[in-house]
Amino acid sequence: MMRDCEATIGALIEKRSVGFISSIDKNGFPNTKAMLPPVKREGIKTLYWHTNTSSMRIKQYRANPKACVYFCDQRFFRGVMLRGTMEVLENKAIKQEIWQDSFTTYYKEGIDDPDFIIIKFTAQNGRYYSAFSSQDFVVA
Amino acid sequence: MMRDCEATIGALIEKRSVGFISSIDKNGFPNTKAMLPPVKREGIKTLYWHTNTSSMRIKQYRANPKACVYFCDQRFFRGVMLRGTMEVLENKAIKQEIWQDSFTTYYKEGIDDPDFIIIKFTAQNGRYYSAFSSQDFVVA
Repeated sequence: MMRDCEATIGALIEKRSVGFISSIDKNGFPNTKAMLPPVKREGIKTLYWHTNTSSMRIKQYRANPKACVYFCDQRFFRGVMLRGTMEVLENKAIKQEIWQDSFTTYYKEGIDDPDFIIIKFTAQNGRYYSAFSSQDFVVA
Repeated sequence: MMRDCEATIGALIEKRSVGFISSIDKNGFPNTKAMLPPVKREGIKTLYWHTNTSSMRIKQYRANPKACVYFCDQRFFRGVMLRGTMEVLENKAIKQEIWQDSFTTYYKEGIDDPDFIIIKFTAQNGRYYSAFSSQDFVVA
């Protein structure tokens, strides 16, 4: 069952032009933000995005790595939430792997721009919504 | 300034066919879910939805009312997050105000269906994203 689930959810994530990441702020409130699609994905276990080092989310994930990500297929009333942890990655190797020249739009100084940083989400479990019902699953 | 902000954000919310609500689960992870548009709205201070009493979100909000709601205008890279608290309302008056006959699709037994419940979000503050920059605001 989980094999099928992973393929279905992977395809759902792949086709989205926007995703939503959530964090916990210092007052204990959930915080949600839209993100462009992940720049790297390994099944439904790990998702990577680039973002601004100076952003509010980076501060929040450094203080509390508990996270969820959500992808919604509005047309077919399907959605998936993955729960897990978000790591802030500063090492050059991952930055080099992820970097694309077009990113200079966001990071003027290029790959060494101090405002360019990677976040890596690792899923533990999730919940899939389809046809008005929900199904919990574990991400191995 | 806040007057303009409220009108801009109200219009953004009004035009969305989907919104996202977040809660905190018993393990301290943020949880996010897509919702149809609110069925009632008072400016950007209070938003109401109907939902299933038996749903995971109802349990979570009863245990921890800290919440955020998020609306995203993908086309123009604009988004708004409102932080606040979510109340679970069971009284008949509010149910009568919100009820529409078409809801029998979700609640077979009608307005007295024990699975029909209202959630009310009250905003404290928020963050508005537009043109790659963010602006915090207080909701009076």
